[in-house]
Amino acid sequence: MSVRSIEWHDGKVRFLDQSKLPANEVYIETDDETVVARAIKSLALRGAPLIGIAAGYGFVLAFGRLKSDDARSISTCIERTTHLFTSTRPTAVNLFWAVNRMRHTAIDSTGKSMDAIHANLLAEAIAIHTEDEEKCRIIGQLGAGLLPNAASVLTHCNTGSLATGGDGTAQSILKVAWEQKKLKHVYIDETRPLLQGARLTAWELQRLRIPCTLITDSTAAFLLQQGKVNAIVVGADRITLNGDVANKVGTYGLAVMATYHEIPFYVAAPTSTVDFEMETGREIPIEQRSGTELTKIGEYQIAPAGVDVYSPAFDVTPHELITAIVTEREVLRKPYRDALEALRGQNLSALSQKGPSAGHAG
Amino acid sequence: MSVRSIEWHDGKVRFLDQSKLPANEVYIETDDETVVARAIKSLALRGAPLIGIAAGYGFVLAFGRLKSDDARSISTCIERTTHLFTSTRPTAVNLFWAVNRMRHTAIDSTGKSMDAIHANLLAEAIAIHTEDEEKCRIIGQLGAGLLPNAASVLTHCNTGSLATGGDGTAQSILKVAWEQKKLKHVYIDETRPLLQGARLTAWELQRLRIPCTLITDSTAAFLLQQGKVNAIVVGADRITLNGDVANKVGTYGLAVMATYHEIPFYVAAPTSTVDFEMETGREIPIEQRSGTELTKIGEYQIAPAGVDVYSPAFDVTPHELITAIVTEREVLRKPYRDALEALRGQNLSALSQKGPSAGHAG
Repeated sequence: MSVRSIEWHDGKVRFLDQSKLPANEVYIETDDETVVARAIKSLALRGAPLIGIAAGYGFVLAFGRLKSDDARSISTCIERTTHLFTSTRPTAVNLFWAVNRMRHTAIDSTGKSMDAIHANLLAEAIAIHTEDEEKCRIIGQLGAGLLPNAASVLTHCNTGSLATGGDGTAQSILKVAWEQKKLKHVYIDETRPLLQGARLTAWELQRLRIPCTLITDSTAAFLLQQGKVNAIVVGADRITLNGDVANKVGTYGLAVMATYHEIPFYVAAPTSTVDFEMETGREIPIEQRSGTELTKIGEYQIAPAGVDVYSPAFDVTPHELITAIVTEREVLRKPYRDALEALRGQNLSALSQKGPSAGHAG
Repeated sequence: MSVRSIEWHDGKVRFLDQSKLPANEVYIETDDETVVARAIKSLALRGAPLIGIAAGYGFVLAFGRLKSDDARSISTCIERTTHLFTSTRPTAVNLFWAVNRMRHTAIDSTGKSMDAIHANLLAEAIAIHTEDEEKCRIIGQLGAGLLPNAASVLTHCNTGSLATGGDGTAQSILKVAWEQKKLKHVYIDETRPLLQGARLTAWELQRLRIPCTLITDSTAAFLLQQGKVNAIVVGADRITLNGDVANKVGTYGLAVMATYHEIPFYVAAPTSTVDFEMETGREIPIEQRSGTELTKIGEYQIAPAGVDVYSPAFDVTPHELITAIVTEREVLRKPYRDALEALRGQNLSALSQKGPSAGHAG
């Protein structure tokens, strides 16, 4: 069964604290948007689509606590809440996309009663959430069609129901392929430093009863050398116009490995993960994580104090290493610039107005 | 200052419990060879040369506790001690090499007084230890000559004074290059699951005051993509006649990355790490580690209970990906089979009789 990682409940946001998994399944209920923002920053809430959804609900909370409906108060609240959420994490574009939707809804509602503004914002936040669920379903269907029979798939990080409003991006493909009896096995990279593969994906695949094996990140190459994997499927945090993909650090290495071993490398993400304003992956801001994520696990000191650490949360995979990008619209193939320009030409306004959030961060 | 990770002291073996590093510097002193064997198995003592050295001292302890000098008691003690140490870890060939030296010393001493046998064994164990120190020094000199000026080197696992009887194998190269002012920076893979890079190499390089930065294993590819590394240097646990190299899991992926990014990939190991009886890397037995090394860190549960784990301690890098193999005899170049056959032809008896132990395991 898929997990409901976030929901609107009785005027509050209720979410699963993913930093406590797999040992403890702790839910947090709050009417304070700063609690939501802090949860995004600490990765208690993570996954590009999910942090977009969370920011949507965060706007509802912020306006729920607003006392006055005069234009100036509303304008201040919009700016304050926008800054609160856009300053949490820089790489995943879905967060900015969701914030923009909420921001425009608030601006469009200015002049109405406080109740009406609040109702509009809640409707928009719920729309972001439910649209994401549907897009996950379509990505799963389209992606499963790409996998061979008896597929043995390697995945990285977490791209499941913990990362999205539905069944996930890359993980939705695994779920659908499993239901279609095309999937034989999943290998999960533990995904250092925050171990989203070990803590979250292993936990989710166990609940889904999908056969899976956990490996260290650097065991992946050895698996490929032995012919134990016939496809790699990952999510994305930002896709640029040329088809370059920012995703959890380690993704680039996997893409090189896939090319070297001649197996397909698939990226799964909705079109809302595409940054149509950015030409190439070189321009993507890469979040740097704290060194203590490498030097401590829990209270356990695993590196000497004071050691220098380089810990980018993401890396960038150049488009030429990617076999296909699975979106909710279609499966994109090379040359990605043509495919993405065509998509922009057809759908840009529709996408920017109501495109669903998906992909994953964290 | 380099660490003295093992020494013979007043009739006992004294060694650093590496499993407690970097938080605690705990030394264990014992006259019981089974304590030494357990320490090898649990990786409290690790590094191919060091476990060879430890097995050497283990033989001295076993014979020190022997009450009778009749041929049968001695023969039983030889067999029991051989089995005790060869059953600890299967991949590093140095262990078997050191056990063979001790075994032959004991056999050759049979018929002498218990004191004479004990003295011969102690002399041989100390010889294994001191020879290793010298070979580390030569490997460092030869390897440093291969590095460019202002070298920025990536290394994996631990190949330092904690892994050997001297300054290390790959790490000895770094130490000499630093002394020669050729080395600018070292990037250290943390090396999951047992974090020898984070716990041990970072700790050693800090003590040597060599500028270093710790990364997760899957950040290495991203560093190479950014041009931040101009050589990779690793150790070895077993080298086969065709030049294939077994080393800590993750090494194979680094070698592919080095090839893809066109930077040199060097392996540092003494000729005693060469298994002249084995044709190719496919035949090397690969040790499998316990799943709990992936699912727990200390008492901290980082993956759901019961999840399947695949955790090979080593992988095999095919010879074609290796730029050069630095030994204490010479720097070997392709074709490795010719270079190794020549070495075997010249020196096999000398090597098998008194070749030094070096390389690294764990």
